[in-house]
Amino acid sequence: MNQKLKNEELERLSVSEFRASEKNAIVIILDNVRSLNNVGSVFRTGDAFLIEEVVLCGVTGTPPNKEIEKTALGATSTVKWSYSKTTLEALKNYKEKGYKLYSVEQAMKSIPLNTFTWSKEPLVLVFGNEVYGVEQEVIDFCDGVIEIPQAGTKHSLNISVSVGVVLWEAMRGKL
Amino acid sequence: MNQKLKNEELERLSVSEFRASEKNAIVIILDNVRSLNNVGSVFRTGDAFLIEEVVLCGVTGTPPNKEIEKTALGATSTVKWSYSKTTLEALKNYKEKGYKLYSVEQAMKSIPLNTFTWSKEPLVLVFGNEVYGVEQEVIDFCDGVIEIPQAGTKHSLNISVSVGVVLWEAMRGKL
Repeated sequence: MNQKLKNEELERLSVSEFRASEKNAIVIILDNVRSLNNVGSVFRTGDAFLIEEVVLCGVTGTPPNKEIEKTALGATSTVKWSYSKTTLEALKNYKEKGYKLYSVEQAMKSIPLNTFTWSKEPLVLVFGNEVYGVEQEVIDFCDGVIEIPQAGTKHSLNISVSVGVVLWEAMRGKL
Repeated sequence: MNQKLKNEELERLSVSEFRASEKNAIVIILDNVRSLNNVGSVFRTGDAFLIEEVVLCGVTGTPPNKEIEKTALGATSTVKWSYSKTTLEALKNYKEKGYKLYSVEQAMKSIPLNTFTWSKEPLVLVFGNEVYGVEQEVIDFCDGVIEIPQAGTKHSLNISVSVGVVLWEAMRGKL
């Protein structure tokens, strides 16, 4: 018998332990993401993979918000977040601090996720709007584009799934 | 300039090409998943990673359904699916066909996703209800449990994110 573990057996961090813990030097920037469901899910995934911060830009909704909370399930109290009116403004701020900037998109010179080299440098990952993706001027400001290889009929994965896949790829090498 | 690619430049499969293409020998079984949003997202991700089939069990909603379509975005017409009244029934069917059965859960003797060996054997991956996870009797019937290592405060990732992470891990080795 392979007994399922109860919540209390998982030895997850408490909120205060989370805040005090060393984070992975990854900042997620959401470039005009429309769905509050997606925003909440990004918080939940960011909590699981101990990221540094989420920056909500433009039309992206911000906590406190009931719709965000439905999928964040409390992770808006653990993952640090901020709001920026424009995505470029947020990127400039992180560039000055020495972060490398990558958009997650499909582009001419994108790097397939499975061949991307994760260094120890602090990193910003930009995810875009559900329909329009990351804005071209945002891509142009970044150091590069990471693409999740896909083989089916659809243009792309859902944003919250893309965030999960890319963060998992960043984390798996450290395990 | 790193030009974004338009839909038509991505050379994605058409619906008929998808149906005719060789799939990855992976079947996703949803064990009483309540959210139609999650079900739709699993179809979309299953399309991107060319899986063989999705089996919707118990209370899990089935197409045609407007809520599922909101996140599936048409992938219910590409990814093969079926319905089973109980998850165990579906599992028995695949066991007889020679598939290896794995639940994705937190359990005493789970295998961390990053150390799981993906063989060429056909595989069933079971994902559970949003609150209760995969039922213990389902876990007991499986050949093993795969766990996504997580470091934060929350019990688990959202189901659609978990499906994305596990399918990506299955695919990345083949790229």
